[in-house]
Amino acid sequence: MAEFMDVHHNMKGLSEADLKAAHEADLAIQAEENVQFKQAWADPDSGTVFCLSEAPSAEAVQRIHERAGHLADEIHAVPLVV
Amino acid sequence: MAEFMDVHHNMKGLSEADLKAAHEADLAIQAEENVQFKQAWADPDSGTVFCLSEAPSAEAVQRIHERAGHLADEIHAVPLVV
Repeated sequence: MAEFMDVHHNMKGLSEADLKAAHEADLAIQAEENVQFKQAWADPDSGTVFCLSEAPSAEAVQRIHERAGHLADEIHAVPLVV
Repeated sequence: MAEFMDVHHNMKGLSEADLKAAHEADLAIQAEENVQFKQAWADPDSGTVFCLSEAPSAEAVQRIHERAGHLADEIHAVPLVV
């Protein structure tokens, strides 16, 4: 398992309810890929969302996001954390 | 106070020691701008660093990063968190 930070662009105007619904959609199916979404942060002005997860691979993270209806634009393995 | 996620690009090959040194340089002076850097994650392959902070403004975050020698490329206020 590794830690990943993924980024979604073009989410301008995202509301708190939108973010919560998207996150819940991920959580509902994440176990099927052995992914654990830990936290998500959103900047509705620039339309940027950051999701932190633990997962076996970037592909596993993307499969969950894709099935939940919101493909990530970038997925970064983040092996260094301070 | 608000929460911010800032992003640094072009940091390919960053080591754990580099990340720790950069973070320590921020921590050493952050109180002067009432900023609290909470965590940082790095992807040395793509050269991307994400820093999470609490601060009075994006400008305060940037002033600390600039004085510590590593200007952020993006600073996002992230008022939405799940």
